[in-house]
Amino acid sequence: MTRAFELAALGPARGVNPRVGCVILAADGRVIAEGHHRGAGTPHAETDALSQLPPGGAAGATVVVTLEPCNHTGRTGPCSEALIAAGVSTVVYSVDDPGVASSGGAERLRAAGIEVIAGVKSEEGEILLDDWLVTARLGRPLITVKWASSLDGRVAAADGSSRWITGPEARADVHRRRAGVDAIAVGTGTVVADDPALTARLGDDLAPIQPIPVVFGRSEIPADARVRSHPAGFLTSPGTSLPGEFHALHSRGIRSLLVEGGPRFASAVIATGLVDEFHVYLAPLLLGGPRSALTDLGIESIADGMRLAVRETVTLGPDLLLIATPKGRH
Amino acid sequence: MTRAFELAALGPARGVNPRVGCVILAADGRVIAEGHHRGAGTPHAETDALSQLPPGGAAGATVVVTLEPCNHTGRTGPCSEALIAAGVSTVVYSVDDPGVASSGGAERLRAAGIEVIAGVKSEEGEILLDDWLVTARLGRPLITVKWASSLDGRVAAADGSSRWITGPEARADVHRRRAGVDAIAVGTGTVVADDPALTARLGDDLAPIQPIPVVFGRSEIPADARVRSHPAGFLTSPGTSLPGEFHALHSRGIRSLLVEGGPRFASAVIATGLVDEFHVYLAPLLLGGPRSALTDLGIESIADGMRLAVRETVTLGPDLLLIATPKGRH
Ligand SMILES: NC(=O)c1ccc[n+]([C@@H]2O[C@H](COP(=O)([O-])OP(=O)(O)OC[C@H]3O[C@@H](n4cnc5c(N)ncnc54)[C@H](OP(=O)(O)O)[C@@H]3O)[C@@H](O)[C@H]2O)c1
Ligand SMILES: NC(=O)c1ccc[n+]([C@@H]2O[C@H](COP(=O)([O-])OP(=O)(O)OC[C@H]3O[C@@H](n4cnc5c(N)ncnc54)[C@H](OP(=O)(O)O)[C@@H]3O)[C@@H](O)[C@H]2O)c1
Repeated sequence: MTRAFELAALGPARGVNPRVGCVILAADGRVIAEGHHRGAGTPHAETDALSQLPPGGAAGATVVVTLEPCNHTGRTGPCSEALIAAGVSTVVYSVDDPGVASSGGAERLRAAGIEVIAGVKSEEGEILLDDWLVTARLGRPLITVKWASSLDGRVAAADGSSRWITGPEARADVHRRRAGVDAIAVGTGTVVADDPALTARLGDDLAPIQPIPVVFGRSEIPADARVRSHPAGFLTSPGTSLPGEFHALHSRGIRSLLVEGGPRFASAVIATGLVDEFHVYLAPLLLGGPRSALTDLGIESIADGMRLAVRETVTLGPDLLLIATPKGRH
Repeated sequence: MTRAFELAALGPARGVNPRVGCVILAADGRVIAEGHHRGAGTPHAETDALSQLPPGGAAGATVVVTLEPCNHTGRTGPCSEALIAAGVSTVVYSVDDPGVASSGGAERLRAAGIEVIAGVKSEEGEILLDDWLVTARLGRPLITVKWASSLDGRVAAADGSSRWITGPEARADVHRRRAGVDAIAVGTGTVVADDPALTARLGDDLAPIQPIPVVFGRSEIPADARVRSHPAGFLTSPGTSLPGEFHALHSRGIRSLLVEGGPRFASAVIATGLVDEFHVYLAPLLLGGPRSALTDLGIESIADGMRLAVRETVTLGPDLLLIATPKGRH
């Protein structure tokens, strides 16, 4: 299994599919094939390994794989059927498949008379699968909402000016975090008001992997908006049914979504209750006036307030970053 | 001078007047009298010491005093004249008198032919005088504005409910800080909405010294308002000319004022530019809605934002306290 983990780690950390590794052992314990998954549209780890053997070469073999073999016809056929057809005798796997459509592989294999040993080193297996597993279970990306406000909770002054509330250290931190997510979401209001590039920059350079921007709202994006020339392209989403739209983004392989505002869109996202993490950059500045970081969350009384827990307080030059999660989750 | 500092420390740390100590030495260096100031309406340290000597007993003596002798007729006559009348030959003092009306003592003494040595151990002298000196120079109390808000800067939910935004640790911290100030200021809006007791409680007990509440605004305070039964009594102030009203509070011996809101009054205080420190209690909670910690500060554009520096971040149970000061001050 340790070798299977090593193989899995060769796969891509982003995208629709997980990192999976597979080792095939002959009856005498010799490794006769290895495989791993290389990303959406490429063979799963099991078929990758099987493909290295001549027809009949896996008969009676033991297959060690990091994730439960799928039972689902996607861009590739179900791995469970491929293993049955190959005549393997035993399948050892680490983590149960969390997918609704794809799970049931273990059951199918057992029904075909194959010995199945599940949950081997499943903690290590889960760590390797990381947010693929979490988001597969949730059926949506991990959602972080971020804003940068003054100490009194304003994201802009009365005239709308907001550059810069935070200092260079905090802005660099935002870019580092952008580089670590699959997608960035903003409302059309922010695109129109600020025309942000929504790229991840590390110093003066573009980060090697760019998050894809997703603009939420039904308004037209201006023809000259900078997001139109984003190196990763861009997506739009109407914002009329957020949970379904998040599910759709997940189906496109977006495991992590950083919501960067503005206030109206961020508030709508928060009101869904689907936010996993809050990143609040606080600048030591007072602004007053009408432009609060959040607008309305549909909360009437203090008892209904959305309780969080602060997980981390990071000092970024003169500013602070508070990382908080919904209370009771982590 | 060290003995004079010891004597000064016997005096009260609060009130209109500073802690001052005085030692009188005969020409041969023997200590012949000691004195200290005991609070408003009682003799100054120099006259306290002189009063222990028979008439003519201070002739040719050296007077060591922690603060420049006053030159001002208040509830007691000017000390400069008393020292001249007593025929002393030398006056040694630590800290210059910062008062507009009371300063000039050294000059008066020199004009009368007395040798004056100023600034002896003035750093220690200033520490002993503490905020008396600072506020005497400013002509107003030290002003701290405090609020407790959600992470998105709200002090109450949409329906006005605000108990409790912060947890018991943060509330206990507020009471400890109340016990350390001379007065607490609130707007009439808060008195009407919340009917706060405005006492300093340590656990279940009242703190031994209570800050005096000052209610700002022209509205009538309800007959049954709890502030009316505050153990220290209460003051009112119209709030129509805040700098002058702060000066008047200082003249009454209030050296430190903790402004506890609400949003409209606190914003007006902040807009004067006279705030020395901000205490922002942040609860990990999101509320949204209209009730922001501050209302309007008269700030139009981000460039005019009031820049602060965070001096301290204190964790209080689930909450955070940020202590900030206007940028450039400390
Ligand atoms: N400091 C910061 O962290 C920060 C970050 C971003 C923005 N800002 C500031 O925020 C301001 C813009 O914010 P904003 O609130 O006006 O605009 P916004 O939140 O960026 O966009 C609002 C728009 O989002 C769309 N939307 C999509 N789904 C939605 C939903 N479920 N609920 C509500 N709206 C949804 C709607 O577009 P349609 O009407 O097109 O359907 C709506 O009009 C700018 O001044 C900008 O500077 C500050
Ligand atoms: N979480 C917290 O830290 C906290 C603390 C306190 C209050 N609160 C909440 O705040 C709310 C009350 O706040 P509020 O803003 O309505 O009332 P407020 O600020 O307490 O009082 C407003 C009143 O202050 C008086 N005032 C005196 N000088 C003023 C000046 N220079 N400028 C403006 N007003 C001045 C005026 O009274 P007149 O009209 O009588 O002249 C004005 O109507 C309550 O819901 C309370 O729960 C929260």
